Amino acid sequence: MATARLDLAIGGRTCPVLVGDGLAGRLGELLRDQLGADRALVAMDRAVASLHGRRIRRGFRGSGVRVLGWVEVPRGEGAKSLARARALYRAFLEAGVDRWTPVVVVGGGVTGDVVGYAASTFMRGVPVVQVPTTVLAQVDSSVGGKTGVNLDRVKNLIGSFHQPRLVVSDPEFLATLSARDYRAGLVEAVKVAITLRPDLLERMEANLPSLLAREPGLLAGVVAACVAAKGELAARDEKDEDVRGILNYGHTVGHALEASRLGRLRHGEAVAVGMNAAAWVGERLGVASEEVGRRQNRLLTRLGLKLTAPDADKNVIVRNLKLDKKVRAKRNRFVLTLQIGGASVWPHISDRVLRDAVRVVTS
Amino acid sequence: MATARLDLAIGGRTCPVLVGDGLAGRLGELLRDQLGADRALVAMDRAVASLHGRRIRRGFRGSGVRVLGWVEVPRGEGAKSLARARALYRAFLEAGVDRWTPVVVVGGGVTGDVVGYAASTFMRGVPVVQVPTTVLAQVDSSVGGKTGVNLDRVKNLIGSFHQPRLVVSDPEFLATLSARDYRAGLVEAVKVAITLRPDLLERMEANLPSLLAREPGLLAGVVAACVAAKGELAARDEKDEDVRGILNYGHTVGHALEASRLGRLRHGEAVAVGMNAAAWVGERLGVASEEVGRRQNRLLTRLGLKLTAPDADKNVIVRNLKLDKKVRAKRNRFVLTLQIGGASVWPHISDRVLRDAVRVVTS
Repeated sequence: MATARLDLAIGGRTCPVLVGDGLAGRLGELLRDQLGADRALVAMDRAVASLHGRRIRRGFRGSGVRVLGWVEVPRGEGAKSLARARALYRAFLEAGVDRWTPVVVVGGGVTGDVVGYAASTFMRGVPVVQVPTTVLAQVDSSVGGKTGVNLDRVKNLIGSFHQPRLVVSDPEFLATLSARDYRAGLVEAVKVAITLRPDLLERMEANLPSLLAREPGLLAGVVAACVAAKGELAARDEKDEDVRGILNYGHTVGHALEASRLGRLRHGEAVAVGMNAAAWVGERLGVASEEVGRRQNRLLTRLGLKLTAPDADKNVIVRNLKLDKKVRAKRNRFVLTLQIGGASVWPHISDRVLRDAVRVVTS
Repeated sequence: MATARLDLAIGGRTCPVLVGDGLAGRLGELLRDQLGADRALVAMDRAVASLHGRRIRRGFRGSGVRVLGWVEVPRGEGAKSLARARALYRAFLEAGVDRWTPVVVVGGGVTGDVVGYAASTFMRGVPVVQVPTTVLAQVDSSVGGKTGVNLDRVKNLIGSFHQPRLVVSDPEFLATLSARDYRAGLVEAVKVAITLRPDLLERMEANLPSLLAREPGLLAGVVAACVAAKGELAARDEKDEDVRGILNYGHTVGHALEASRLGRLRHGEAVAVGMNAAAWVGERLGVASEEVGRRQNRLLTRLGLKLTAPDADKNVIVRNLKLDKKVRAKRNRFVLTLQIGGASVWPHISDRVLRDAVRVVTS
C-alpha cells in the first residue's frame, strides 16, 4: 500500500501527516528526512511497547538518529495527570532533551495527550512527533495540537495547543487493538462523517464488513479523510474559538458521562451516547433533519456501540456539564448537526433541554 | 502625567501596553474598555496586596467588572513551582474562571511567571492581564509572553509562550520597592540599553540622580523604551528561536549564578555579574569594543550593583551552565555585544572561555 501524505498548515507551521502500512518500522529515517533530526527521545505506551517495541526500536538502527532515552507511560485515563507530566519532565531532563530534540510519542489518545502536554511545557515547548497507535488517536487526537491532563476529575482541565511537527499513522497498529477499543475508536470517525463529510459516511455505511475486518486500505482512507477534515477546521481556528468547536459534537454530554464513569467507559463509547443526546436535542428543538439521528444511530449500532448508558448517574452527569470548558458565562454552547455534513455551534441551549437529553440517554 | 500607549503585535494578536501614573487604581475600567470584560480573577503578590490592595480593589468598584476571586501568591523564587501552579488551577476552578475570563496578575517577575504559566495551561489558556509592580517586571518580564516555573532547581525549565492581552504599568508601584529591588530591577534596562538602544543608555547615564530618585516621568520613559525594544524583537521572533535571544545578554552566566545562590541574589544582581562576564568574553575573543564593558560596568556600578560574586561556588555555576536552555547539542550559544546597541547571538563559545569568564567574575 502506498503512503498517503497530507500537509496541515496550522498555527504558522506545516505538519506532514503520513499514513501507510509499515511506517512505524521506519521512524528513524522519517525523523531524519522530515525534520533533519539526529537525536530524539521516544515515549511509548507500556502495552504498545510490549507488542510493537522491537519493531519501533529496529526502525532507529542505522538511521543516524540517536535515541537519547526510551520512556514508558502507563495506560489508562489515570496517566493523564500532572504527576505523570512531572515524571516526564524529569525523564526529559535526565536524557538530555534540549529545545531542538523531538519527543516521539507512540501510543493512543491518553499517551499523546499527556506526553504532548509535557513536551509542550518543557523548556516552553520541544518538537513533538505523534505516532498514534489507536483508531481514536489516528483519526482524531494526534492531529490539531490539543494536549491535556485531568485535574480533580475534570477532564483536560489543564492543557495547551502545541502542534506536532510530524504525524506518522500506521494501520498495522490497529490490528492488535481489542475489539472494544477498535469499535470505540471508530466513533470519532462517525462523528466527522456526520458533522462534516457525507461522502465518508456513505463509504463507512457501504463497507461495514471490511471496516469491521480492519481492512488496511479502507482504514487508511478513513484515517486520511478524518485528518483532512479536522486539519481544515484547525487551520481556520487553531485555538478553538469558533468553527473548530464543531469537533465537539457529542462531546458535551459525552465528556460529562465519561467523567461520571471514569475508567469504566471508553471515550468513544461515551461520545456515542453523547451523539445520540445531541441528535435528540436537534430534533427536540425542531432544527435538525431526522435523517441525522437515524443514520448516525444506525451506523453506531451496527458498529456494536450502545446509544444509552442506563447505569450512569444522571445527576452526576448534569453536575459535570457545568464544568464543561464550552460553558461561557453560564451559557451552554452546544454543537448541533442540522443535516448530514452540516453542523454548527449553537451559542446556547437551555439547562432544561440539556437535562432532558441526559435523562433520555440514561434511561 | 499622560498615559503612554504601545501596541505590541506578537503572535497574531495585538497587546496594548499602557504606562502611566495611577493606572493601577483604574483596572476595572481598563479591563472593560480594552477587553470588553465583565468579569475577572485577580491574583496578587501577597506583599503587594498589603501595600496596594485597597487601591486595586477600589479600582473595580462601579466599573461593571465583577471580580470572581482574589488570590494571593507568596513572594520569592520558591513560589515558581508546579505545586503553586496546581494551587492556582484549583483557585481558578473554584472561582468559576472560564476560557473567556481574564486573569489579572498584580506583582513582580515571580508572580507574573507563575500565574502567567498557570493561566496559559488552564483550559489550554485563558486571557492574562499583567500589572507589573517591580522595575524588572515593568521593563522586561511582563511583556513578550514568556511564563515559567522552576523544577529541581532548574530555573524556568517548565513554561510556555502565552501573550498577555493587556499590560498596565504604573510607576506608582515603584515608589514602595526596597532600594535593593529597585536597583536590581534597573539591570534589565541597562541590558536593553547596551544591547539595543544607545539613546536609552545616554538617557540613563545623563539622568542618574533622577533615576535613583525614582522620578516618575523619567521612569515611564525608561519603561516605554524597554517595552518597545523588547516588543520589536518578540514580534519578529515570538518563540525565541533567533533574534529574541539577544535579550539573554548576561543571562547565561547570570542564570547559572542565580541558581547557585537561590534566594540569596536578586535576578538583576546575578545578571549584572553575568553582563560583566559577557563583556569580558567579548573582549577576550577580540570581537567587542572596549567601550561596551566600560560604559556598561560604570553605569551598573553607579547604580550600586556589584560586578562580581566572590562568595559563589564557581564549580556549581559551571555545572549549572550545562543545563542552560540555550545549549544546543552541546554547543554554547552566547550573546555578545560588539558595540553599544549592536548585540548578536553567537552559535558557540568554547567551554574553556566560559569557564574562564566564570572564574573572572567569581574571584
